Amino acid sequence: MAKDKKMVEAITSMEEDFAQWYTDVVKKADLIDYTSVKGCMAIKPAGYAIWENIQHELDRRFKETGVENVYMPMLIPESLLQKEKDHVEGFAPEVAWVTHGGLEPLQERLCIRPTSETLFCDFYAKEIQSHRDLPKVYNQWCSVMRWEKTTRPFLRSREFLWQEGHTAHATAEEAEERTIQMLNLYADFCEQVLAIPVIKGRKTDKEKFAGAEATYTIESLMHDGKALQSGTSHNFGDGFAKAFGIQYTDKENKLQYVHQTSWGMTTRMIGALIMVHGDDSGLKLPPRIAPVQAVIIPIQQRKEGVLEKAAELEAALKAAGIRVKTDATDKSPGFKFAEQEMRGIPVRIECGPKDIEANQAVVARRDTGEKIVVALPELAEKVTEILNTIQNDMLERARTHRDAHTYTATTYEEFVKTINEKPGFIKAMWCGDQACEDKIKEDTAATSRCIPFNQEHLADTCVCCGKPATKMVYWGKAY
Amino acid sequence: MAKDKKMVEAITSMEEDFAQWYTDVVKKADLIDYTSVKGCMAIKPAGYAIWENIQHELDRRFKETGVENVYMPMLIPESLLQKEKDHVEGFAPEVAWVTHGGLEPLQERLCIRPTSETLFCDFYAKEIQSHRDLPKVYNQWCSVMRWEKTTRPFLRSREFLWQEGHTAHATAEEAEERTIQMLNLYADFCEQVLAIPVIKGRKTDKEKFAGAEATYTIESLMHDGKALQSGTSHNFGDGFAKAFGIQYTDKENKLQYVHQTSWGMTTRMIGALIMVHGDDSGLKLPPRIAPVQAVIIPIQQRKEGVLEKAAELEAALKAAGIRVKTDATDKSPGFKFAEQEMRGIPVRIECGPKDIEANQAVVARRDTGEKIVVALPELAEKVTEILNTIQNDMLERARTHRDAHTYTATTYEEFVKTINEKPGFIKAMWCGDQACEDKIKEDTAATSRCIPFNQEHLADTCVCCGKPATKMVYWGKAY
Repeated sequence: MAKDKKMVEAITSMEEDFAQWYTDVVKKADLIDYTSVKGCMAIKPAGYAIWENIQHELDRRFKETGVENVYMPMLIPESLLQKEKDHVEGFAPEVAWVTHGGLEPLQERLCIRPTSETLFCDFYAKEIQSHRDLPKVYNQWCSVMRWEKTTRPFLRSREFLWQEGHTAHATAEEAEERTIQMLNLYADFCEQVLAIPVIKGRKTDKEKFAGAEATYTIESLMHDGKALQSGTSHNFGDGFAKAFGIQYTDKENKLQYVHQTSWGMTTRMIGALIMVHGDDSGLKLPPRIAPVQAVIIPIQQRKEGVLEKAAELEAALKAAGIRVKTDATDKSPGFKFAEQEMRGIPVRIECGPKDIEANQAVVARRDTGEKIVVALPELAEKVTEILNTIQNDMLERARTHRDAHTYTATTYEEFVKTINEKPGFIKAMWCGDQACEDKIKEDTAATSRCIPFNQEHLADTCVCCGKPATKMVYWGKAY
Repeated sequence: MAKDKKMVEAITSMEEDFAQWYTDVVKKADLIDYTSVKGCMAIKPAGYAIWENIQHELDRRFKETGVENVYMPMLIPESLLQKEKDHVEGFAPEVAWVTHGGLEPLQERLCIRPTSETLFCDFYAKEIQSHRDLPKVYNQWCSVMRWEKTTRPFLRSREFLWQEGHTAHATAEEAEERTIQMLNLYADFCEQVLAIPVIKGRKTDKEKFAGAEATYTIESLMHDGKALQSGTSHNFGDGFAKAFGIQYTDKENKLQYVHQTSWGMTTRMIGALIMVHGDDSGLKLPPRIAPVQAVIIPIQQRKEGVLEKAAELEAALKAAGIRVKTDATDKSPGFKFAEQEMRGIPVRIECGPKDIEANQAVVARRDTGEKIVVALPELAEKVTEILNTIQNDMLERARTHRDAHTYTATTYEEFVKTINEKPGFIKAMWCGDQACEDKIKEDTAATSRCIPFNQEHLADTCVCCGKPATKMVYWGKAY
């Protein structure tokens, strides 16, 4: 049993080497495998099931706000990509180019979509004529490709899965409202479902999306103190509309440009789940996103009545709406325990002959290790309660960790010292000048994460240049 | 009102020009739009919602049989595509090639997946070691690309959406069992959900999938008498396993090759729905797949109490599990009626001041045009009943049409005359020789659709060459 346990647990400790720990968890929790295609991963059932739950939860929330799903081509003609100047500059260096179809060279190169603003704009230019055609609130679930040089599973891969929403509105106000609405939706989803607290704010001009007027972001903090951009929502104003000629006739029969937004969340959130919640035993999934919320592990399962009782308990938990499985394989209980821990299943239910005799089971929490003895008739009710507690506790724990690793700096010396010694967010004042962002990045490798909606007045002057400050900014090293 | 109706209904009659009718329906029912990318379509909300329902229904059925979803890369290195000889010969002429990543030329070309056997094999070769790792029953939902010369929305587009299942088994028997299981699942899905009756059978060697030992197919008949291959399930035997080295140690510790299958269904089924059920007023969706099953159209909606009553009815129908919407836009009722018909919504509920006074509504069936007066307290119950009736009637109507357009031929003269004069399936005996298939295709443009599981003995000799017949075959011109 001890040997079995060791087998599964042979992962690098997170304190020792966080990057290696991450890679170990990704592999040992059976989330992905590497492939023959450099920078592209195979997402295995345990990983894909998390993504399916993310899709399901987000899609439901989208549709409640009037979003409709569509599907655009995966290829973009080069001439189309080039229509919006900032956009092509941002993306052209990192796209994959299709140059041949079958045995023939193409007359015009096509890139695999790195994002689909240009395709949606091309589409909207034809679809939208009148104010009656507005708003358009479309979304697609698809894969995109960005030719990254260094890649890491989920966090930065050449191909990744995401959703991208693209909307068109009659007025600037309505576009801004939708941009913020989707940012709030992402933030609520992260906190309520993924148990990941986020900072909401606006990106600086340096960090905003190629072609956007304003980019809003939610930023989360990983266990190692590095930041992760977790979802973005862009307001394009009428910039793309002018580049693509997307116009409508208003109620007074005048031609107007539409105002557009886009917003996306990706498979990198699986990376966030690992890095926010995981520990040296592996993954820890919040119950609301866990494909399997509880696993029943029969003890001495060959003894009479044990598997029958396990089946009975499984049925009772299922009836209560719990996603439950029984592990009745011929592996040892110790191996099964370690596997449940590695895969991050929130709750383990142990039940053997002695438990059955006492009409009880032992419920072990993945997040704390706590073991709770529960009378069998109350099992479904108690497990539901424990899953809710785990969900809340995981969010609170992540919030406490984040807050404990959020620092402030009012002098540049303090800023640099903190960045170098204390991984986490640093709140500091900024003059609004990109030169200061450049200097900070150059000196410390930290970037501005966002100008948070919740502003605090920490000082009168920019932490970098000493000129009058206009905003408080979250800074940090980021994935 | 008459003018409004005409606006929506201005589509070509199907008797006059079926191909143009199809294109008109696809566009006017708002299913797709053409894009700047030749041969690739934009699937609009009304089209994509049908695909979401297909996905939902199929995915649920898959999972009940133990299927797990995964995601493989969208690109295949040329060397990987070339590993299985027949497979590369079949697909290499019709793939799109990526030759540049960012600003750099690639060392090896990558093709956009036309199908993913090679990627799954590469993956399985690493994942499978022992008999304990078997079976693997994986599926993915994704888009694929085939560089077709002539394209038509849904039926044949360069990019299309599909699911592709790929399995690996310890024995040949188990692989064959899974191949047939999935074929039956597809057939049941088509009949029960899409109301499309199918012929189950095996493809001839000439028509089988590139690299397969056996391809099984379900074939359906469109309204114009042309056949549509509607789903395929392939048994690969150990051919791919040998090409990719996918071996496991069995219980006696001997190395064995796995046996594999793959199976797929695509967005072309939306084309099938149009061509099996549609009419000159547009699309007709079977209730089980219809994104909106019933639309409430308030009459004289500005009169007091009408919209309130519509909202009340909508709530009652929703509570009964009916997918219902109210059209309270300022379009005329006539326009709304025509739009409901064009979009194929199975049931329309008309309710105005006079109806409300009489405590009733008028329910109009899209499939027959029949109008049924229903007392309001019974509305939800009656509409549920009517939707079930429509579902059954649509399947029966399609079956009757198919059977009425299924012919037999015992001489070649009769065969050619029937093909030329009576569009539909022809059942005829075959010697098993590919030369006869080639001759028939050359002379008539018809192909062997399948060797049906339900064999009949129509004659002793091949309809083409007169040699002894071994099988009865369904022949037909196909999409």
